[in-house]
This record gives sequence, structure tokens and C-alpha cells, in this order.
Amino acid sequence: MNIAIWGYGIVGNGVAQVLDINRELIEKRAGKSLNIKYILDLREFPGDPYEDRVIHDVDICLNDPDVDIICETMGGNEPAYTFTKRALASGKSVCTSNKELVANHGAELIALAKANQCSYLFEASVGGGIPVIRVLNECLTAETLLEMSGILNGTTNYILTKMEKEGAEFADALKEAQEKGYAEKNPEADVEGYDACRKIAILSSLAAQKTVDYKDIYTEGITKITCGDFDYANAMDMTIKLLAVSAKKDGSYLASVAPYMVAKESPIAGVNDVFNAVFVKSNTLGDTMYYGKGAGKLPTASAVMADVVKCAQNHGTHIEILWEDSKAEVLSFEDAQNRFFVRTAAEDAGIVKELFGKVTEISLEQYPEEFGFVTQPIAEKEAKEKIEKLPGLISRIRIKA
Amino acid sequence: MNIAIWGYGIVGNGVAQVLDINRELIEKRAGKSLNIKYILDLREFPGDPYEDRVIHDVDICLNDPDVDIICETMGGNEPAYTFTKRALASGKSVCTSNKELVANHGAELIALAKANQCSYLFEASVGGGIPVIRVLNECLTAETLLEMSGILNGTTNYILTKMEKEGAEFADALKEAQEKGYAEKNPEADVEGYDACRKIAILSSLAAQKTVDYKDIYTEGITKITCGDFDYANAMDMTIKLLAVSAKKDGSYLASVAPYMVAKESPIAGVNDVFNAVFVKSNTLGDTMYYGKGAGKLPTASAVMADVVKCAQNHGTHIEILWEDSKAEVLSFEDAQNRFFVRTAAEDAGIVKELFGKVTEISLEQYPEEFGFVTQPIAEKEAKEKIEKLPGLISRIRIKA
Repeated sequence: MNIAIWGYGIVGNGVAQVLDINRELIEKRAGKSLNIKYILDLREFPGDPYEDRVIHDVDICLNDPDVDIICETMGGNEPAYTFTKRALASGKSVCTSNKELVANHGAELIALAKANQCSYLFEASVGGGIPVIRVLNECLTAETLLEMSGILNGTTNYILTKMEKEGAEFADALKEAQEKGYAEKNPEADVEGYDACRKIAILSSLAAQKTVDYKDIYTEGITKITCGDFDYANAMDMTIKLLAVSAKKDGSYLASVAPYMVAKESPIAGVNDVFNAVFVKSNTLGDTMYYGKGAGKLPTASAVMADVVKCAQNHGTHIEILWEDSKAEVLSFEDAQNRFFVRTAAEDAGIVKELFGKVTEISLEQYPEEFGFVTQPIAEKEAKEKIEKLPGLISRIRIKA
Repeated sequence: MNIAIWGYGIVGNGVAQVLDINRELIEKRAGKSLNIKYILDLREFPGDPYEDRVIHDVDICLNDPDVDIICETMGGNEPAYTFTKRALASGKSVCTSNKELVANHGAELIALAKANQCSYLFEASVGGGIPVIRVLNECLTAETLLEMSGILNGTTNYILTKMEKEGAEFADALKEAQEKGYAEKNPEADVEGYDACRKIAILSSLAAQKTVDYKDIYTEGITKITCGDFDYANAMDMTIKLLAVSAKKDGSYLASVAPYMVAKESPIAGVNDVFNAVFVKSNTLGDTMYYGKGAGKLPTASAVMADVVKCAQNHGTHIEILWEDSKAEVLSFEDAQNRFFVRTAAEDAGIVKELFGKVTEISLEQYPEEFGFVTQPIAEKEAKEKIEKLPGLISRIRIKA
């Protein structure tokens, strides 16, 4: 069976490597031998073991009836979207790590695959090598999914871990992440939460079996988090994590991405560095958790390759994924109830009492000119209005219930 | 599609309940309606919603060509073994929670299913509702599995958690577990580690793709663990967990079940009460972890029902599980290297130095007549010989590396 890799960057190259490293076992599971026939990329790769497979024209691959499975590791919407549609329309299965494309057009591409007796699989699009997509689609099949929450972005988790453990400020931690290759030169998609937003949109869509539009998901990044915030968190036996959350409420979905303070004793607090974790709450099974490397060359490539194995096993048939091409109802985040931790100037004590009534105060010796407090659960809209009225506001972070 | 439930105890009854609770979603995923046609049990169940489906003669079910899927929730080797063989031989798929039968005859029953274009699935046999079997068989398919370790028995984890958090002695914690229904009247299978042993044998067999015989697995229970041991563990920032471990060494397998001291900061230390967790180390993905309720009526039943969905989706075909009917080579535990924590009488200080050389000592105020020490990594056989020479030996527990 011939496969093609589209986009020979880090993940695409990883796919070839994983196949080389575990070829015997992969082919045994797939039930057939797997040959990388084409590598589609604009660049050349002199010296690469697969340099002779490199092509620059997608038509060579699309017009070759011997290619059955595409690994789409290009990323981004275009040309991946156009290429993927053409591949599926010609009956070639596509296995992708492209979360942007899946979040934008997942339902449409699954339907196109179904119409052409092939498959569109995207295990690597969420949680890197953690098999969370397959868990939702093929494991928890007797469960009504109630809530999913997790650390879905390794870059920001690395930065927050550095800030917590080493007292690094955001800018320094980001710089170190960039030097280590964990963050991109333009880190916006990670640090502003956009990446985690796409991922929770995909998970929510699988739970809803309809599209949860990522544009409807409230998204807040970690750029405003400071060491001072960690000092307060630590004093309250908590830490700060960027959480993606999606909950089912009466058939609608409430989803968000934002930094939260979480209790140190909760399992999510122990998910450090570039690791990811997804918690799933379902109605008869209760809580389950899936943990592992959420990014990185080989872990992500391993997930792509597992999808290739699945496609090879099911060649000529469509692997069903319940995700209809209609929009799920997404609730407004403004009405969500959250508790907030707020830092403000010492002289705001009076107005805090006036605005928030009974709060739990916390003062730290090293910050004599300010104080922190924790609100009761309060609607987002109301919280925003009240917090904006504090003249000496320093920061505010939600607290995970 | 008609299904039958064999054994209407806690799990069997749970299967019917899960189907009732999530019927719409389950049937959507299965692609067909599911009807419980028979419930095989020696007892009657007056007042049960399914009382009219109860039969006492397995032949009624086996001779009915309209029954496609059996949920075998009887437990034990016989008559489950004979009944299962007859079902598979007649092309009926079997989904089971019966770890004893799977550990004893898994490979044979899978082969029989294959020969008859039906399936033998056993997600519920390990880790209750945690989808660990499917993760190994269908998710980590591009991975060479290197090591699995985990907390696979909820009863003992509940007891150890009580001992750690409340200072309860083993006998009292066991009694409470029995009162809460977490431990059976005869708790031997749990507290002696036999249950965890069957489960790690199943996971090891899936990793080896051959049978790892549970009789070859070193198994030690928790009956000798005392509060005093927890005092020492706590002083070393550790806790005590019953771990099942299986590691691949040059194509052979080293497996064991025993209590271990584990660092409180390790993720496994945070797995408390009846929760289970399985850690998997594989060659390109690295570490992943799967966590959830390892026992209980509905979680276990949910796993059986997920297998039913899988069988319904694949009706008429065999779902492949790579597990040959030959024995994997299991290494002798005597040669395994472990570090030990040992408690012995104060007057043994001299002989300890003589036997073990350089050790790390630890003394607790409340135990003035004894001391504890931690050995270097040492072969099991050698450790046993040396530890037995201590005249004042109080206890010894392995330390997880």
C-alpha cells in the first residue's frame, strides 16, 4: 500500500521516521506493507533517505491511483483544504495533524470521505500523541459526554511551568521556550490561546456530533500572567494553568480557553512542561483522564501513523465519525458562572466590599501596597463590569471549581 | 440486533442499565437498535425490568440464531469457558469483563472467534471503564510498547489510601472497604494481588502479542503493610501503592505485582481511592497515562457496552487482536534489580552495614527501637537472602525507580 506525505516539515519528517523505526510492527498491524511513494513539499531534501520521493506538484500524487493514503502534515487552511478535498474526492484517505483545517472544515471533509468510501482521520490534531480523538470516537461509545477540560497546548504549559517552578517572568520563559524549539518565532497562536481554542472546538464538535465553531469560543491567553500572580496562587496552594473547557448544558455547549488557578492537589496541577492532559466527564463512567506528550515530532507523527494503520485496516470502507455539518448551539460565555481571584490596590478595599460583598481576602508581605481577594461564583458579564470599576486593578484570574 | 447477558450480577445488571440510560446514543453509534433478548442466570429477578428475559438454560441462547452478541459477565473459568467457546463456535461475538478467563484462555478464544468471523473483546477485564485495552490494540498501533505500570486494583488502592490518609491499620481499612462494597467477603483475590496479576498478564500479553502466563508473574499483596511503613514513607515524601509492572527486556518480559514506595510528586501517587491508572512507555510516543474508575457497576458495564457497539459495527467480521496462542518468555523476577526500604531493630546496625554496605538510613522519633534504611539497587535474589539474615527485621518494601 502506497502512502504520500504532504508537507515534509517537523511532523511530516516524523511520520517517515516513525514508520522506519517501527515498520515491522506497524505493517503487522496494518496487515500490509506500507511504502512512502511521494513526499510533497516546495523544498528539496538532499541527503534525506526519502529525497528521491520528493515532488512539488500535487497532481502527480492525486493522479496516481496507486496512492491510497495521504498524511497531510502541511498545516494551515490553504492549500491543505483544496488538496484534501481533491484527495478525498478521488477516494484517497487522509490522515492529518492539521487542527486548523479540522476545526474549520471537519464535518464537510468527513462527509466527503464518506461519500467516497474513504476516511478522514485527525488523531494528531488534538493532544499530539495522546489518543484522545480515538477515545471519544471509538472507546467511550456507550457514554454521554458531559464535560471535557484539559491542558491542550504544550508551549503555554511549558511557559507556565517555568514561571511557577523558577520564578521566571512571562517574557523570559517565552524566550527560553523559543530557544528550545517549543515556541515559534511568532508565538501568538500559542500564547493567545488560539491553538487550544481550535483543539477544544474539535473535541467539543465530537461530543456534540455537530460543529462547535471555534469563533464562538471565548479565548484568553497567558500573556498577562505574572510571577506575582503565581505568588498568590502558591500562597493559596494553587497553580495557574491554561485550561480549555467544554461543558454540555441542556443540549448546548459552553466552551472557553483561559488561564485558571487550580488546586495543587488536583491531578491537572501535576501536568507540567510540554505535557498535555484531557479530562473527560461522562454520565455512567464518571471521570477519566488521558495524559501524554501533546506536541513534538515523533509523538505527533505516531498519532498520524496510527491513523494510517486504521485506514490500511479499513481500506475501501469509510471509518465513521459522528460529526454532522451543522452548527451546535454555543452558549454565551457572558452568562457562565466563575469565581475570580482579583489583585487590586490596597486603597480599593472599600470599593471591593461595596461591589463584591463577602470575599476571601489574601495579603502577601512582599506586596504591601495591594491585596488579593476571591469572589463568590459570579456571571462573567457581571464580573467584568465590577472588576473594571476597580481603580487600582492589577490582575484577575478565574478559579477552577 | 439481539444481545444476551450471561450472569446478571452487578456488572451484568449494569450492562442493562447503561444500555437503558444511553440507548439513543449507543444505537446511533452501533448503527442499529439493540435488544436484550436473554438474561442467563440461575436466579429469578422478580420486579426487574428485564425479568421476562431471564433464562436458566444456556442452550436456549446458543441455539437462537437471532442472538448476535453475548455479554459474558459471569466471571470465573467455568462454566464461562465452555459457554464462551460454544458461542464463538456458532459465530456469536462475546464481550466480557472476565479477567480470569481472558488471562487463562485469551489467545485461544480470539483464534476461535477469528475462525468463526466473530469477535472476542474484553475491554472491561482490565481497568474497569478506562479504555486501556483499546488504547493498546487500536490507538498506540505505531508504537513499540516498552513498559506498562499501574494501579490495577481498586480495592487495594482504597485500602492503602485509607491507611495513608487516616492512619487506619490494614485490617480496619479492609473492614471498611468490605462494608462499602469495595471488597468481597473473601478478599484474598484483591489483597493478595491475584486480581492485579491477571490484569497485568492480559496487558503484557497484548504487548508481547503472545501469552504472558500469569502463573509466571511474581505476585505479592498488601496484607503485611502497616501504618508504621506509611510513617516512614511519609518521612521520605513517598507513599505506598500496589503496582503491577511489566517491562520488555530484549524480547522477553519481566512482570510483577507488589507494593512499592513511590514519590509523592509522581503522578501515580495522586491516584487514590478506587481509581486506577495505567502508565505506558513506548518508543516514539514516550509516556502516556490513562486514569479512571477501575471498578464499579456502571464504569465496568460501560466498557462491556463499548465492546458491544464495536461488535455491532463490525458484525460478520472478526475484530483483529494480535495475541498468538504461544507463550512469551517471562524473565525470572529473582534477577530483577530493585531498591528496597527495610525496617529492622536498632541493634542490627552493624549487620546491616556488613550485608548492604552503603545505605541511606532513616530514623523516626516514634520508633526509637528500630531504624529504616534504603538499599542500592540490588537483585531480588540477593536482597531476599540478605534481608532474611536480619534478626530484627520488621518489614521491607520495594522502591519504585
